[in-house]
Amino acid sequence: MRQAGRYLPEYRAVREKVDFLTLTKTPELAAEVTLQPIRRYPLDAAILFSDIMTPVEGMGVRFDFQPGPVVADPIRTPADIDRLRLADPRESVPFVLETIRILRRELPPQVPLIGFAGAPWTLFCYLVEGHGSKTFVKAKAFLFAHPEAARRLLDRLAEAMAAYLRAQAEAGAQALMLFDSWAGLLSPWEFRGFALPAVQKTLGSLQDLNLPLIYFPNQGATLLADAARSGAHVLGVDWRLPLSRAREIAGPALAVQGNLDPAALFAPPQELDRQIRRVLDEAGATPGHVFNLGHGIERHTDPDAVARLVDRVHEWTQGKYGG
Amino acid sequence: MRQAGRYLPEYRAVREKVDFLTLTKTPELAAEVTLQPIRRYPLDAAILFSDIMTPVEGMGVRFDFQPGPVVADPIRTPADIDRLRLADPRESVPFVLETIRILRRELPPQVPLIGFAGAPWTLFCYLVEGHGSKTFVKAKAFLFAHPEAARRLLDRLAEAMAAYLRAQAEAGAQALMLFDSWAGLLSPWEFRGFALPAVQKTLGSLQDLNLPLIYFPNQGATLLADAARSGAHVLGVDWRLPLSRAREIAGPALAVQGNLDPAALFAPPQELDRQIRRVLDEAGATPGHVFNLGHGIERHTDPDAVARLVDRVHEWTQGKYGG
Repeated sequence: MRQAGRYLPEYRAVREKVDFLTLTKTPELAAEVTLQPIRRYPLDAAILFSDIMTPVEGMGVRFDFQPGPVVADPIRTPADIDRLRLADPRESVPFVLETIRILRRELPPQVPLIGFAGAPWTLFCYLVEGHGSKTFVKAKAFLFAHPEAARRLLDRLAEAMAAYLRAQAEAGAQALMLFDSWAGLLSPWEFRGFALPAVQKTLGSLQDLNLPLIYFPNQGATLLADAARSGAHVLGVDWRLPLSRAREIAGPALAVQGNLDPAALFAPPQELDRQIRRVLDEAGATPGHVFNLGHGIERHTDPDAVARLVDRVHEWTQGKYGG
Repeated sequence: MRQAGRYLPEYRAVREKVDFLTLTKTPELAAEVTLQPIRRYPLDAAILFSDIMTPVEGMGVRFDFQPGPVVADPIRTPADIDRLRLADPRESVPFVLETIRILRRELPPQVPLIGFAGAPWTLFCYLVEGHGSKTFVKAKAFLFAHPEAARRLLDRLAEAMAAYLRAQAEAGAQALMLFDSWAGLLSPWEFRGFALPAVQKTLGSLQDLNLPLIYFPNQGATLLADAARSGAHVLGVDWRLPLSRAREIAGPALAVQGNLDPAALFAPPQELDRQIRRVLDEAGATPGHVFNLGHGIERHTDPDAVARLVDRVHEWTQGKYGG
């Protein structure tokens, strides 16, 4: 999940100088805020600082952050889909690829860099609804009214995100993650019928890279058995489902990532420890667990709580995964 | 779920004249907007128009709707809990009880009236956070920092809601529903440790009424096995979990309520029919299913889609439950 962000004073210092959009498009600054948490904490991996909307600008979608994404001309009819271009990421997002190249030089060699993209259904939500929403009812109404056009749009987004992630890998990303923030708004039927095939297309086309592929279907407790067929090697799990249960559902071939409640970082130290312990216990003794928050880190999180979390996880897993 | 509301022009006409708070406190108007959907559609039950925050004013909590509830002095320390009084609903919410009495006179005899209250954890969220939130991190932090005080607050809310629901039953409500809008923000552990005992206290104390008790843990797919021990006779299920699976988890002793995605009302007629059919098929041939939306109705819903829904459910369940 997100490592950089407003909970870090050094991030806020950068943001006082530039707006969010500029930050995502300026390689030196995007690399800097990616590195900030790595300098502060002995993290085992870094995740690229960017936004899931960044690559869709190259498809011809105009948007702004207010502070969430607001799309200038949302897709409201099947014909609107034809406006979307498939761009070469080297031309449409050279700044992201340059950020990755800087990071591979600057990151300590033992800290791999995770690249990422938004999953097709989640991007579909923003492109059709036009902005954030609790229910994304316009996006769902489009699915229901125009199922074939919806699949065409999801397919195009799947192709674009596959190219985007491949370009990230070629620039040096050592693992790739697909964030499906709004997967959990779908019933299992709509997930299987629309969101999942698009994820399978994206991840399926990246298998030859031989990099770990991570899929996070947010609020996906009821979708996990299907998500296990996504082509990902690792499934992200929010804090609503115990990891022991997630492992049962996902099967032994997949690793799981998660799933500490981000609110646990607001707990007193002993309670935070107890909840960390619980995640580790539920993950079990076998390998195949990437410790992480179950969702993005909260704005008012105390950086010292994050330090304690990182230390505890290292202390309590010493030797567990071979050191 | 909510039947009255902004999707109905006759509701908007009432709201043009009075604000939301006045509407909840004026028996003639609250009864009128409760009756509006009953006049328009051949519904099998009516649900009282009110707000989950209505009864907490009598506990000494000052709040306003902007448009969600905003609490003047949120509870931030254990000592703040002692400010909360236990009021006699006949003195603190006489207007709600009068609304129910009017409704029992005005409703057709074959249409039972469902009373409701907010579940203790959901009220806790508003009282501690002070306002709506995606994550209610202050409310959760209170749980983690002050577990005993949190249980004391939940216990007091449980007692207050038990008295409130009992008063509704005495005034004429023929079924009682507890809405736990924010249950799904909790891990199964926190649900079991905090939210569930409070629900059990409320519903446990109402068993002697011999009325159907309904509990709706919103986004509760991972909580349903625990919710089955809540003391409710019916569990509300959102659209994320197929009802066949909900029934497996809840066991044969409990009925289920739900679970059409409110977004389905934005689908073309054939697709709406397909999704209604799916809910009925998943509910199975045995009785013990209350057809309902899986969450509140959306503001821009077409009233004609609701008419179609009600007709279809009646048509397709004719004879299923004895006529």
